[in-house]
Amino acid sequence: MQNSFLVDGAADAAISPADRGLAYGDGVFRTLRVRQGRPECWPLHFRKLEEDCRALEIVCPSEDALLGDLDALFRDGGDGVAKIIVTRGDSARGYAVPLEGASRRIVSRSPLPRYPESWYSDGVDLHLCRLRLSAQPRLAGVKHLNRLENVLARMEWSSPQLAEGLLRDEEGWVIEGTMSNVFLRSGTILRTPSFQRCGVAGVTRARILEAAPGIGLDARVGSISLQRLAAADEVVICNSLIGVLQVRSMGEYRWQNAGLAEKLRERLGL
Amino acid sequence: MQNSFLVDGAADAAISPADRGLAYGDGVFRTLRVRQGRPECWPLHFRKLEEDCRALEIVCPSEDALLGDLDALFRDGGDGVAKIIVTRGDSARGYAVPLEGASRRIVSRSPLPRYPESWYSDGVDLHLCRLRLSAQPRLAGVKHLNRLENVLARMEWSSPQLAEGLLRDEEGWVIEGTMSNVFLRSGTILRTPSFQRCGVAGVTRARILEAAPGIGLDARVGSISLQRLAAADEVVICNSLIGVLQVRSMGEYRWQNAGLAEKLRERLGL
Repeated sequence: MQNSFLVDGAADAAISPADRGLAYGDGVFRTLRVRQGRPECWPLHFRKLEEDCRALEIVCPSEDALLGDLDALFRDGGDGVAKIIVTRGDSARGYAVPLEGASRRIVSRSPLPRYPESWYSDGVDLHLCRLRLSAQPRLAGVKHLNRLENVLARMEWSSPQLAEGLLRDEEGWVIEGTMSNVFLRSGTILRTPSFQRCGVAGVTRARILEAAPGIGLDARVGSISLQRLAAADEVVICNSLIGVLQVRSMGEYRWQNAGLAEKLRERLGL
Repeated sequence: MQNSFLVDGAADAAISPADRGLAYGDGVFRTLRVRQGRPECWPLHFRKLEEDCRALEIVCPSEDALLGDLDALFRDGGDGVAKIIVTRGDSARGYAVPLEGASRRIVSRSPLPRYPESWYSDGVDLHLCRLRLSAQPRLAGVKHLNRLENVLARMEWSSPQLAEGLLRDEEGWVIEGTMSNVFLRSGTILRTPSFQRCGVAGVTRARILEAAPGIGLDARVGSISLQRLAAADEVVICNSLIGVLQVRSMGEYRWQNAGLAEKLRERLGL
């Protein structure tokens, strides 16, 4: 099946260079899994989209409009990935924001990625990125369209043996993967980095924080050093597409697999 | 005259949501003035475009292709603003960069802005932005498409009395305007901020650094504190569209006008 997309509900409509999403990355996005035509965890994704739009003072499209687009793209009841981009719409050249407060929604469908079986059975190996995430409290946590740091970080490795790259901030604190969030377990404590100054707070991260007590873990959000990560009993990464994956190694670091990823996948129905 | 644009040379072609410029801000841009069909300072703009593409490892379009686009858009020999966006082109979803190394060029024409006469006769007043620019050495100096900080900073004021906002970095060093570079004169020293960790190095900034000795000034690039700015004899801002403007005030700060902006405009033929 070909990718296809709707722009403000219209099939394969054109996006202009005056769109502020293209001109300035002035927008936000969501990537979610669709199974048999149904978007997974929709309420969480929509709530996060609303939050992210609010952070940039962009008018969030209505839930009805977005669900209508998803229905139209997945009318065959198939599986796939839905990507929702919301931009501040068109404007004249210049950074000043149009007063009328319009926005544009671009919803697209693409095939579900096929991840290696071994990622789920044996875990994955990470690359420790040299690029450090910059600190911008105004944008921290928001899944916005300014993603050059992720692109540059992703360019650091090409080996298919490395499933993901781990990013730190300028001060060396562990923040996230280029496309995933990270958790570490030390005894019965499950930790994930806080996003005061950078990072993207994913929906699966939020679900894991909620689900942790149900598998006997005490969830904590805070600053995580590389030393603390190295000393953890288990490490996992997560996002809406890969689900939760056990991390086996990163460079010289090795972690055991005591079933954390599997337990979380089960608990979350992934 | 309507805005119009060419995508890889094709009139009003569609940009898809798979374009990495839209998806991730994965690209760079230039804004330049066109007079009677001729792009001003073209060699400097093209060289900077090449440099910026190189910084992101994006294939820069050929000079011939870009000049061909500009010729086609300004065939009437008119005046206007040309904007050139170069993105990494389309890719499948995900941050990984396509191996083939293609790029996409989007060249558009818009009318020359009409700036108030008083900006040139009396100078301008600035807003001191609360937003602090984040530090990313890998992107410093590059005019890339990740411009949310500029958008957020520009949202801080709406009064037409304020021509521009001045941005500092996290540590408080003066960096630039939201759409301009800044210079200060103290005696015979002309200073502009260095861009080791953030900032966009404009073509007019480079021209002023070259031209300074010709008007008896010793140009220096370095760290500039707000205190040093406040104590300057004169302050000017510049870009390819506004030229050079005398700064009159910013909040409680006031600066004299001893003709620096006018001298620089004359020297640069602006």
